[in-house]
Amino acid sequence: MSGKLYGIGIGPGDPQLLTLRAYKLLSQAQVIAVPVKKLGEESTAQNIIRQAVDLKDKTIVALEFPMAHSKEILKESHLKAAARISGYLDQGRDVMLITLGDVSVYSTCTYVLRYVEAMGYETCIVPGIPSFCSGAALAKLPLVEGHENMAVISSIKGTKTLEEALDRFETVVVMKAGRHMNDLCRILKERELVDNTTVISNAGMENQYIGPVVSEKNFGYFTTLIIKQRKN
Amino acid sequence: MSGKLYGIGIGPGDPQLLTLRAYKLLSQAQVIAVPVKKLGEESTAQNIIRQAVDLKDKTIVALEFPMAHSKEILKESHLKAAARISGYLDQGRDVMLITLGDVSVYSTCTYVLRYVEAMGYETCIVPGIPSFCSGAALAKLPLVEGHENMAVISSIKGTKTLEEALDRFETVVVMKAGRHMNDLCRILKERELVDNTTVISNAGMENQYIGPVVSEKNFGYFTTLIIKQRKN
Repeated sequence: MSGKLYGIGIGPGDPQLLTLRAYKLLSQAQVIAVPVKKLGEESTAQNIIRQAVDLKDKTIVALEFPMAHSKEILKESHLKAAARISGYLDQGRDVMLITLGDVSVYSTCTYVLRYVEAMGYETCIVPGIPSFCSGAALAKLPLVEGHENMAVISSIKGTKTLEEALDRFETVVVMKAGRHMNDLCRILKERELVDNTTVISNAGMENQYIGPVVSEKNFGYFTTLIIKQRKN
Repeated sequence: MSGKLYGIGIGPGDPQLLTLRAYKLLSQAQVIAVPVKKLGEESTAQNIIRQAVDLKDKTIVALEFPMAHSKEILKESHLKAAARISGYLDQGRDVMLITLGDVSVYSTCTYVLRYVEAMGYETCIVPGIPSFCSGAALAKLPLVEGHENMAVISSIKGTKTLEEALDRFETVVVMKAGRHMNDLCRILKERELVDNTTVISNAGMENQYIGPVVSEKNFGYFTTLIIKQRKN
């Protein structure tokens, strides 16, 4: 009988934000698949779970997901990951594919799960805490209250979506904001929303930053902005 | 020394979706504050955590948050809750205030935490899995991938926000949809989006429903819709 692929959201960085289910599955797992940007490099996700789960005696399978924009390169990496995982599933072993944050929110996991499922294997998704929920908690900032509405956007699509979202929503969450801080800051200044913006960078990790926009600071990839039209 | 108030998101219903931190805090807690619609009625949140945490020998404080629309009645209930909690904090006891889903997403917790903090006590927020992440996992439905963006709206504000969100976002999550299914269904039909919509009702609870829109069915308060412009 074939093994089953679990896509597990491990939360944004703090190992204590693993769910009980994720913790149990990972503790009992034989095979854990971890995403890396480049083979041989450290896996951020692996570094997080190793603080809560003993990884000794487990098979760690590093899957390379390059930070590329080319759809072909990305698709190739997803198919390659699915093929490697299927090798373990064929041996009757379950595989835990871990991902930062939640599986359904901008996770590479999704593509791989879809391919593996299309190949005929069983899959299961375990949700995780998204970075914006963790960031909101650390900043003591409600995302939405009462009649408010929220947009969650990724900044890669350009700034038009941000403008439209700011026109209509009380709260706008911008994910993967790190590389676009200049454009984002320009819009925030134009709209006098700089003081209403909280930057959440590497939430729950060692180099965590939760605070106001600082234009000189170089924020990393895992940076989320919470923009509130109305200050609490 | 005064105690500290913890606002704890317990996730959408499945006790295994408690985070390790929530589980530890609740296991060690002496005082747990639980929301009820009416004093004497069962607390949904309490029913969830009792499946994972032994509540024997703990002081359970039921806080009444009526399902009212009047701002005055709601504010009064929040202030009353804050006052009751402060009584325990003054005794030097920590209080765990639990809430369904995540603390920052449409949670009553937020108001109470704000009042208690304004009274000079220490507070801490522990994030939880929001219902839309859990629902997406159960439905095996990615919320956002690649360049997609998402709107999270509560249906109480009327249907204009939904129309605007559907005009601009690849994914629209409608929370607290239960009482407005007729209006929502009308818009979905007009836009030919009925088949692109997944209903998530009471996720992780006994009476869970994950599936297509069924116009005859009466969905409860904890109902979330995931509407995807593009079917996966």
